[in-house]
Amino acid sequence: MSAAAPPPGDAHLREHGLGGRVLAHGSFLEVRRDDVRLPDGARATREFVVHPGAVAIVPLLDDGRIVLERQFRYPVGRVLLEIPAGKIDPGEEPLACARRELREETGYEASQWARAGVVHNAPAYSTEGIELWFARGLVQHGRRLDAGEFIDLLPLSEAELDARAASGEISDVKTLVALLWLQKWRNGAWPLQWAGTAAAQTG
Amino acid sequence: MSAAAPPPGDAHLREHGLGGRVLAHGSFLEVRRDDVRLPDGARATREFVVHPGAVAIVPLLDDGRIVLERQFRYPVGRVLLEIPAGKIDPGEEPLACARRELREETGYEASQWARAGVVHNAPAYSTEGIELWFARGLVQHGRRLDAGEFIDLLPLSEAELDARAASGEISDVKTLVALLWLQKWRNGAWPLQWAGTAAAQTG
Repeated sequence: MSAAAPPPGDAHLREHGLGGRVLAHGSFLEVRRDDVRLPDGARATREFVVHPGAVAIVPLLDDGRIVLERQFRYPVGRVLLEIPAGKIDPGEEPLACARRELREETGYEASQWARAGVVHNAPAYSTEGIELWFARGLVQHGRRLDAGEFIDLLPLSEAELDARAASGEISDVKTLVALLWLQKWRNGAWPLQWAGTAAAQTG
Repeated sequence: MSAAAPPPGDAHLREHGLGGRVLAHGSFLEVRRDDVRLPDGARATREFVVHPGAVAIVPLLDDGRIVLERQFRYPVGRVLLEIPAGKIDPGEEPLACARRELREETGYEASQWARAGVVHNAPAYSTEGIELWFARGLVQHGRRLDAGEFIDLLPLSEAELDARAASGEISDVKTLVALLWLQKWRNGAWPLQWAGTAAAQTG
């Protein structure tokens, strides 16, 4: 390892895009290939999924349990245990997306929301960022799954969630990051700023 | 939420592949579109990246610090702070990949390794699984970056890593999951099984 501190700024790391083209534009995925200039002036190509971004929600029931989902994920060929999540629609605010996805997939509306942060789940080949939100003050209004969505709901205590992560049953990264945040928040280490949503309170 | 327990088995969630085709085959990314039969018999399509799998490494220095990397990630347009990681080569064992990537990117060889588990970072649209390995007994042998790789090394204490995660500076999911595992392991909650690697000890 170099003992020297990294040079100031990131010019020695940064790549500069030189344009590119769409490699594939499916119904769901758009894939691009861009030419880039590397920090040393050499050229390279970068291929990646263009993703609109997503939100993931930690829905906290009044008894402290977290509402999780069991959903078959075709690319990995198995049912995963995950917190609710979904893609942001064009022009949609992340919080609006979080409220929509929570209502659609679980039936819950929340009276308070807090944004934990944004995470990058595949930064080598996807533009996706996932905003992680916490939701509490949940009231059940009946869910309305999209056609073709098949999701079981499974509320778990923090201890149950922890045990299933330790055993490897929970392999979904956003759900593992949610566990990290949940425990940090509950032990007072990582604060959350809660805000009420008027529409949720009246709707 | 349905108050009833989910039906036994996952037949009510599982999708069945009906074949498909390659949508795009770039130099780096292969993207497929498959037709699937949904649990209710309806048809749908699934588009996803076919990924060989990856490993990520938590390199523990004898003084307790963790060796992190700063690397520009073109798809997200910024430098991320991440644990070392890389794609598995065809036919390569995950541990062999972990040793190779650690040596190439950081110059370290480790005398002991422990596998924490596998995580799925984009299960909606990628087959990727990331095996998370811990490495200790590190000895510096000089790194050998691939052409076109530009990586700073940054050893951080657990407290520094924690603070940078809390502030949002660390947004990479595998690194956040590594922090979760590191703290669970160090406080005795999630055990790791360590094994020596003879070649690493003599190499």
